[in-house]
Amino acid sequence: MTNNHTLLIIAHGSRKASSNDEVIAVVSKVKERLKENYFSVDAVFLELATPSIEDGIKSSVAKGATTIVFLPYFLSVGRHVSSDIPEIIKNQQELYPDITFRVLHHLGSEEGILSLLSDMALEGLE
Amino acid sequence: MTNNHTLLIIAHGSRKASSNDEVIAVVSKVKERLKENYFSVDAVFLELATPSIEDGIKSSVAKGATTIVFLPYFLSVGRHVSSDIPEIIKNQQELYPDITFRVLHHLGSEEGILSLLSDMALEGLE
Repeated sequence: MTNNHTLLIIAHGSRKASSNDEVIAVVSKVKERLKENYFSVDAVFLELATPSIEDGIKSSVAKGATTIVFLPYFLSVGRHVSSDIPEIIKNQQELYPDITFRVLHHLGSEEGILSLLSDMALEGLE
Repeated sequence: MTNNHTLLIIAHGSRKASSNDEVIAVVSKVKERLKENYFSVDAVFLELATPSIEDGIKSSVAKGATTIVFLPYFLSVGRHVSSDIPEIIKNQQELYPDITFRVLHHLGSEEGILSLLSDMALEGLE
């Protein structure tokens, strides 16, 4: 273990197992890319699937994390991004006052999404 | 008009107007980037918001589109991506047999999403 950081990518969760598996597959590839920077990278789900955010935090702490970074895998700010996720994380921070929690902005607000959409659209004309 | 292509970015749609506005803002920026390639780029919504996919197609055709490219702004394949959207587009294609319809894969399956998530996660450690 070269660092004490874990990354939890928070997805909504679906009743459809293949949808959750798709998120888990994306997260596995991100984990591979970040192995020098995060000793653990996991998908966690707000609802309808497991592990929950709370489970992910518990497991990170058990593995020795001192910093947990949260990345909301959401395209826009609904109630989940604006209230539900911050509330869960706030409550969890109170349970683990010695762990540093950092919440990133949600995926949809990332500038890079514009290039990604533009590139896809250009491929559509080829 | 330098071309006859329109791009319709298909989002789920939300009861929360600010969520839909956020999508529309992203799409406006993509439109600006693609102005040499698509004479029109619009957000359309599967449900809960307008314009609908059908409205977007109707408006594209009225503006003189000969090719309409569809980009599903979804992170994973649920019923919407696998059934609902293809069904609407298939029905619409029958109404407009002379227009070329192209459906791109959904955003979540784009390889570039991995770099985007990795970059965000690295910023979280700075």
